[in-house]
Amino acid sequence: MLRWLTAGESHGPLLIGVLEGLPAGVQITTPEIQAALARRRLGYGRGARMKFEQDEVRVTGGLRHGVSQGGPFAVQIGNTEWPKWESVMSADPLAEQVSDDPNDKPLDGQGRSAPLTRPRPGHADLVGMQKYGFADARPVLERASARETAARVALGQVAASFLEQAAGIRLVSHTVGIGPVGTPDDAELPGPDDVAALDADPVRSFHAPTSAAMVAEIDDCHKAGDTLGGVVEVLAYGVPPGLGSHVHWDRRLDSRLAGALMGIQAIKGVEVGDGFRTAARRGSVAHDEIERGDDGLLRRRTDRAGGVEGGMSTGEILKVRAAMKPISTVPRALDTVDVATGEKAVAIHQRSDVCAVPAAGVVAEAMVALVLAEALVEKFGGDSVPETARNIRSYLESIPELQKSEIR
Amino acid sequence: MLRWLTAGESHGPLLIGVLEGLPAGVQITTPEIQAALARRRLGYGRGARMKFEQDEVRVTGGLRHGVSQGGPFAVQIGNTEWPKWESVMSADPLAEQVSDDPNDKPLDGQGRSAPLTRPRPGHADLVGMQKYGFADARPVLERASARETAARVALGQVAASFLEQAAGIRLVSHTVGIGPVGTPDDAELPGPDDVAALDADPVRSFHAPTSAAMVAEIDDCHKAGDTLGGVVEVLAYGVPPGLGSHVHWDRRLDSRLAGALMGIQAIKGVEVGDGFRTAARRGSVAHDEIERGDDGLLRRRTDRAGGVEGGMSTGEILKVRAAMKPISTVPRALDTVDVATGEKAVAIHQRSDVCAVPAAGVVAEAMVALVLAEALVEKFGGDSVPETARNIRSYLESIPELQKSEIR
Amino acid sequence: MLRWLTAGESHGPLLIGVLEGLPAGVQITTPEIQAALARRRLGYGRGARMKFEQDEVRVTGGLRHGVSQGGPFAVQIGNTEWPKWESVMSADPLAEQVSDDPNDKPLDGQGRSAPLTRPRPGHADLVGMQKYGFADARPVLERASARETAARVALGQVAASFLEQAAGIRLVSHTVGIGPVGTPDDAELPGPDDVAALDADPVRSFHAPTSAAMVAEIDDCHKAGDTLGGVVEVLAYGVPPGLGSHVHWDRRLDSRLAGALMGIQAIKGVEVGDGFRTAARRGSVAHDEIERGDDGLLRRRTDRAGGVEGGMSTGEILKVRAAMKPISTVPRALDTVDVATGEKAVAIHQRSDVCAVPAAGVVAEAMVALVLAEALVEKFGGDSVPETARNIRSYLESIPELQKSEIR
Amino acid sequence: MLRWLTAGESHGPLLIGVLEGLPAGVQITTPEIQAALARRRLGYGRGARMKFEQDEVRVTGGLRHGVSQGGPFAVQIGNTEWPKWESVMSADPLAEQVSDDPNDKPLDGQGRSAPLTRPRPGHADLVGMQKYGFADARPVLERASARETAARVALGQVAASFLEQAAGIRLVSHTVGIGPVGTPDDAELPGPDDVAALDADPVRSFHAPTSAAMVAEIDDCHKAGDTLGGVVEVLAYGVPPGLGSHVHWDRRLDSRLAGALMGIQAIKGVEVGDGFRTAARRGSVAHDEIERGDDGLLRRRTDRAGGVEGGMSTGEILKVRAAMKPISTVPRALDTVDVATGEKAVAIHQRSDVCAVPAAGVVAEAMVALVLAEALVEKFGGDSVPETARNIRSYLESIPELQKSEIR
Repeated sequence: MLRWLTAGESHGPLLIGVLEGLPAGVQITTPEIQAALARRRLGYGRGARMKFEQDEVRVTGGLRHGVSQGGPFAVQIGNTEWPKWESVMSADPLAEQVSDDPNDKPLDGQGRSAPLTRPRPGHADLVGMQKYGFADARPVLERASARETAARVALGQVAASFLEQAAGIRLVSHTVGIGPVGTPDDAELPGPDDVAALDADPVRSFHAPTSAAMVAEIDDCHKAGDTLGGVVEVLAYGVPPGLGSHVHWDRRLDSRLAGALMGIQAIKGVEVGDGFRTAARRGSVAHDEIERGDDGLLRRRTDRAGGVEGGMSTGEILKVRAAMKPISTVPRALDTVDVATGEKAVAIHQRSDVCAVPAAGVVAEAMVALVLAEALVEKFGGDSVPETARNIRSYLESIPELQKSEIR
Repeated sequence: MLRWLTAGESHGPLLIGVLEGLPAGVQITTPEIQAALARRRLGYGRGARMKFEQDEVRVTGGLRHGVSQGGPFAVQIGNTEWPKWESVMSADPLAEQVSDDPNDKPLDGQGRSAPLTRPRPGHADLVGMQKYGFADARPVLERASARETAARVALGQVAASFLEQAAGIRLVSHTVGIGPVGTPDDAELPGPDDVAALDADPVRSFHAPTSAAMVAEIDDCHKAGDTLGGVVEVLAYGVPPGLGSHVHWDRRLDSRLAGALMGIQAIKGVEVGDGFRTAARRGSVAHDEIERGDDGLLRRRTDRAGGVEGGMSTGEILKVRAAMKPISTVPRALDTVDVATGEKAVAIHQRSDVCAVPAAGVVAEAMVALVLAEALVEKFGGDSVPETARNIRSYLESIPELQKSEIR
Repeated sequence: MLRWLTAGESHGPLLIGVLEGLPAGVQITTPEIQAALARRRLGYGRGARMKFEQDEVRVTGGLRHGVSQGGPFAVQIGNTEWPKWESVMSADPLAEQVSDDPNDKPLDGQGRSAPLTRPRPGHADLVGMQKYGFADARPVLERASARETAARVALGQVAASFLEQAAGIRLVSHTVGIGPVGTPDDAELPGPDDVAALDADPVRSFHAPTSAAMVAEIDDCHKAGDTLGGVVEVLAYGVPPGLGSHVHWDRRLDSRLAGALMGIQAIKGVEVGDGFRTAARRGSVAHDEIERGDDGLLRRRTDRAGGVEGGMSTGEILKVRAAMKPISTVPRALDTVDVATGEKAVAIHQRSDVCAVPAAGVVAEAMVALVLAEALVEKFGGDSVPETARNIRSYLESIPELQKSEIR
Repeated sequence: MLRWLTAGESHGPLLIGVLEGLPAGVQITTPEIQAALARRRLGYGRGARMKFEQDEVRVTGGLRHGVSQGGPFAVQIGNTEWPKWESVMSADPLAEQVSDDPNDKPLDGQGRSAPLTRPRPGHADLVGMQKYGFADARPVLERASARETAARVALGQVAASFLEQAAGIRLVSHTVGIGPVGTPDDAELPGPDDVAALDADPVRSFHAPTSAAMVAEIDDCHKAGDTLGGVVEVLAYGVPPGLGSHVHWDRRLDSRLAGALMGIQAIKGVEVGDGFRTAARRGSVAHDEIERGDDGLLRRRTDRAGGVEGGMSTGEILKVRAAMKPISTVPRALDTVDVATGEKAVAIHQRSDVCAVPAAGVVAEAMVALVLAEALVEKFGGDSVPETARNIRSYLESIPELQKSEIR
């Protein structure tokens, strides 16, 4: 059992991530987590905030001398702009401004402390106010903000280290669509050694012509005062067969992956393998025929299923996609209603990004890492990396020769 | 907290469904469950088994005189063909044939008792054998079979009764795609009063021209010895705003719906609202602007988000889609390997269906009902239908006038 | 992850138990489960019902030819008196008597169908009616009844088989107190080979003089028209060190055992090891000093901790106790109030048992088996008995020579 | 659903507590949490560390201007001695001493950085090393230490505030036994207004003669170079009937309370109501007879059941006890073995407390608060304090006049 919780608000002092159930012996360092967070800020089309946003990372539990200790792993990510928000977001009641920062205005109901009463379409604002009984959308948007994904990425990096060290599993994410621009179906898949190249690409695309078209689309959209969504794909290499299970719906790996990906802010669609495209095919060309290679190992001729059959990883490349809606705070403001007055209004535009799809790939990768780590611990148990690794090895060895399949 | 488990094998004596956490006071009867199961056998393109398959339903716990009692609801669905399988699927060890049925052959390793060693592409067979250490795929396919969804449909009907009785929520499922044939985006949505009409349509489509085209596609595919997948949509009417939450990823309603739908056999893609289509749009036309109606209620001008913003139901029509891959046991057999010999082989074709998409809509509807029931109990608590209903009412009344929104 | 649910009412047609997450390859048969249920009916001081009560056992899922198949294990236990209750407990609404049994009276509001409005002290009756909104205690007592523990014992037997086959763990339960009569602290502990002898003892005591005194106490109490409680102890032999964990409170094995034991009807106290007795000692004589044996293995000189330190099994004998209150339906009726009239009343006495403590040991043993099975799967993973067993073996071998401890 | 996780090591930089699922609108401040933590350091017989130990509390999520916001509540408790431990407990690998503190010795394998290879009896040390594969007990004792309960107490204070504000529930904990000295069974129970008096008593006893005897026992034990355990009791006033449920074992309130209490470090026994004492009584004097008071409300004549019947709160005073073993690091050192050499050794004595029982009451109170808060949210739902409070009120009003019972 692996559990993780995040806490913290977008403009609060810090975000927290806690990962409980991680085996001992995982090697991970603060700089590695910082590097993961830097990847989350990547991407052509991001606004000014991403540049300002520095992620001050501190591991506060579960790690000693770079090695996990079996207890809950805890990490905090400081908000470098906190001094400006110290009054507005103060945990405790306050009578006056609490920091020396000239931007930390007193709570006069103006500026940052003005109640937000014009719920933005496409956001949690309106329903969050209804559900929790707020007259102000501030508490809703502070927690609903995608800033929270920084905590997931930090934990995801820990999970990814565990996956690689215990099982040799390596993850890759890339952008396969931005707005109407999509990667051709026959484009080459990036492998685990292509991550640096992907991160260097302005949109994290592995297909140069598509990358250029995506950049052009972002430029065009930017000029038009609009925003873009898109599609990201996460691939996992080296996944042993048998993670997840067919025996109950909520043990299925695809079910868990779908829940995790759809649980990311702004994601509206999820596919495993060829997903919706496979639903349009006929059965004779929709599945992955099995053959034995010259090395005696079974393999599938294709990977339409995305490495999952019967809710279990097959040893083929695990392949999932997530569709992200365009950023909801559109420069050309959307219509809404001021719930303090009942009057028509336009939604405040607080953000200058055109497109956050490249970063969404990094977040999706983190969620996949966490789901796979959970599935790995569930099948193989183990309280330390050597124990889990040993159990994986002996499982793979125990598969009868004629049943053994290639792990890609 | 609502929990549900199913048990039983495709050719075992019976399937079981247990639903724990259901409030008392839900009115439900055996004939209503039988009717739900009959809907699961609907659809043009189903083979002979669906006709033979009679669902013998017995409620064995949690219900008294047609009213739920607070304890776990338990239902069993008998397998009318059990006498033929009594030896092959006997729970206990046996020396000889156990039933009088002439089809119940002794365990001579022939016929039904022959080990299945040619794993079928697109099925759990191969990886299930690897994972659980079986030399025979029988135990895998018996549990991985979609027959298990009968138990989910039975439980889903109970959940649906609870939703309607406690909250006035009503569900509709329909087919929006079969193979390459899709329903136009501007087609009218079926409402809760259209269910009978949908069930009467050969493919459970609400759009007559599309329905005719789907039937033609199935006929054509049947002639070609092939199979078809497609896309189903589930709509929920009357959902109050505020189910699910933005505060943590696994509380999001969209996350839970995605996990539940992807947890259905053969589903490879899930969308909330316009899903992948919305990822291709620009932000200015991708969200649902908010306005106040003449009745003073807030509403969205569109429902691109599928009734979910920030991971919470908004009061708009809840709309989710699931993409089903074509049936994997293709008449024109797929290549595989016999894992007992290592020789090339073709996958056994055991099923005569061309297309199971219409039935998949009924299963998807059941999963949505279960997820919504869980979310309802989570937000509103309640140990009886009157208590939950009262809590919903007082919540809706407590929303300030200027924040109140229409519930569709 | 191991999950289990039970369903069914005391006078319903059958009880159900479902155990999800059990590895494949566990050998278990229907007669073994029947034998476990027969043990639950043991004990001097039980009334007539125990003799009538026949447990018709049928395994309906997860088992084939005596071997578990990886899917949910499902068992049903029929109620042989069902024909008498078919109208009163009918799942569906009915207009008239449904069975031919002359005892199956029509629903005339008399006899079995009379509403129960005099809540019995010490039972769930009153608060159950308040919580679930019932005017009649029938639905409450039907589910709250200890009859439900039959389903737990059936599942516990499956868990016990898994424990023994995968890990060599064997369980023993015995009675250590009945009313004021207690077993001396220095009495010899029964071992796994003493189970038959224990089951043959009238009160399942392992200490002959105490057994005789307990029988005398039951006789005396019976004459006085009263009832008795007592204390049972469950021992587990062969438990490897390291089940449970110190890293989080809800991973602690003692926490889980306490929750499981206190979750048995009528249990009001739980101890691990010497429990309350150890709280009265000084530290110098309250712990288990560690020494190395001639065989080079570490062991504790005593087992005051009951085989659990830091929330983890240590390899010493696991030892837990549960305190059962006296049966609440006392022949000398207790005072209550008729909630239909508000008048004083006496609680109906429906049961002729004087003491159910010996049987409670069998139920406690089942709960311990389920908790240990869950902890075993959590630490060692494994989808089959050979896989779990292999992982246990390699773990034990991996412990450095100087850290190795004896497993008792 | 309420979830909580803690993270952090005894000598790490800080402890973290995260409480997910707390409704919005709970009023709580940092000073209130600090006050709760100060209560945890109370008690005659504590050593020097308690005096040094300052709890630097910072709420980092879920709270704004003293009111909870619906998102996860996060709190951190700084370790004021961290500078001394910064090298030994550094999260990242290090080559040399990292702080300026003269006590922060370089990692020379001496002093604080010396491997701990003499596992202490009564601690997690030995089995923790075996389980997680450590050659050094440091990582085990750092997380197993009772210091972690500070995070639970902080979260428990938040839960307690929610209980009081939403439901009027108020908790009291007191010491009922220290070593062999116990409070008489007929001693008056402390009420919610007695908490200040209890906290002022040297051992948190409510019975003056017993308090004096306990102090004398501690003095005597201190002179003898030994340690003491004891028994604490937690009472909850104002609990509405119907928390928990009889319908499934793991929904029972007593089961959850037992799991939570036994999940506290050093607890070896748990009782609900009269617990083990009730097991020694006869049925006629073991239950709580029901009567109607002059005010027309039902009440129990006694509270032997501790306010729980059928696994549900009854409205009577909720009463649970926990037995704490004596502190394991005994001044008169216990025998053990050095696992680095295999030689006989004595366990290091690191702590100067004689008795930590008074503080254990505060921790037990926190765990009870968390369990009750979870049960409250489960029965009544609610995303804000007003919503939960409204649902409770309307539930209590809906109970028929003749079923209404007093809430103590």
